[in-house]
Amino acid sequence: KKTINSIYGTRVAVLAGDFLFAQSSWFLANLDNLEVIKLISQVIADFANGEISQASSLFDTDVTLEQYSDKSFYKTASLIAASCRSAAVFSGVSSDMKEAMYAYGKHLGLAFQIVDDILDFTQSAEQLGKPQGQDLASGNLTAPIIYALRNPLVKEELLDILSSEFVEEGSLERALHLVQLGGGLDAARALAQQEGETALAALACLSESPAKRSLQQMVEYVLHRIY
Amino acid sequence: KKTINSIYGTRVAVLAGDFLFAQSSWFLANLDNLEVIKLISQVIADFANGEISQASSLFDTDVTLEQYSDKSFYKTASLIAASCRSAAVFSGVSSDMKEAMYAYGKHLGLAFQIVDDILDFTQSAEQLGKPQGQDLASGNLTAPIIYALRNPLVKEELLDILSSEFVEEGSLERALHLVQLGGGLDAARALAQQEGETALAALACLSESPAKRSLQQMVEYVLHRIY
Repeated sequence: KKTINSIYGTRVAVLAGDFLFAQSSWFLANLDNLEVIKLISQVIADFANGEISQASSLFDTDVTLEQYSDKSFYKTASLIAASCRSAAVFSGVSSDMKEAMYAYGKHLGLAFQIVDDILDFTQSAEQLGKPQGQDLASGNLTAPIIYALRNPLVKEELLDILSSEFVEEGSLERALHLVQLGGGLDAARALAQQEGETALAALACLSESPAKRSLQQMVEYVLHRIY
Repeated sequence: KKTINSIYGTRVAVLAGDFLFAQSSWFLANLDNLEVIKLISQVIADFANGEISQASSLFDTDVTLEQYSDKSFYKTASLIAASCRSAAVFSGVSSDMKEAMYAYGKHLGLAFQIVDDILDFTQSAEQLGKPQGQDLASGNLTAPIIYALRNPLVKEELLDILSSEFVEEGSLERALHLVQLGGGLDAARALAQQEGETALAALACLSESPAKRSLQQMVEYVLHRIY
């Protein structure tokens, strides 16, 4: 999969991003709903904060699960949560139901991000469309490695490899293996499952309907990728 | 003058831009005025269009004064015009007066951009904080060169130099000299002056006040830089 960046260079890629940003701002403003405009503008702020926080914590082995979860919220879940809440705003439902739709989107988004981070460890380069373990190689420490670092059997060796930032031949493959061995993938899968269940629970306030069934299937679809 | 790009690299510069964009979206949404949100979101769209149109017309010697003016509107004047109109919106004035404030900002912005383009030809590298003729060197053809290309005395040599994209030693300096010789700078100054006068004329609907005087002085301040 080629990126605009790799085909046309950074300058055109940045302009293309600005163009999309501008189009989005325009369509957003023309929804004519201040509550929704505020929701989505918060997403844009969250997204920028998430990218900056991710860039400034590369190879930080002290990263906690809570910090990982915050970053995942900023870069992925905030958009889905605000979008779900926005749909509720346009439907004119009660504020409890708006909160529930926000919670659904948030936990669906967190599940999605955890699944995506697991796939970085388990899928082949061909399936991913990018090198296996690329997130890890660039120092972005996600759920599987955070969990593995809690396991005394693999912790020391993982820390050694991370502190060398994978300069040694084969060290990335070794780290991927240690994460598996240390139970990092199993623990991350359980976390994704738990987020998915929290998302489903938020749908309790909706009466049965094809729309509700679609929202439930979305959770199943997201989790399905790791099994 | 150092740029974020030169100190921290492209990645951080793009993130910093996203951060500022996000902050602006947030503050804009919290002005709680849909009319103003739409005005400014149009600016963002105009700005992206202007950058893309500039990037795609480099070294295009067929560029007309009208295309130049459109680009200047997109990349500079649109923001000033929409900001002036937004202030009028918050003041709750008539729609005629909102139009007049938009026209003031638009022509002030065009004057500012023409002046800026003239300075690229006339100021030293030290005054500009970037190399003299940098716009021209990168193929961005602005008012002074568009006017000079209309003068048969310098046209052919200028076209030759532009078609070679300044590979030849000293050709940029020669082009700067030919633009001066061909009357390009004088004609561009007259255009800036004319835009400034159009901006001032738009203020006729305001009664005399210190605020009106400040708006008039802003035009004088912008034009002052080329004399």
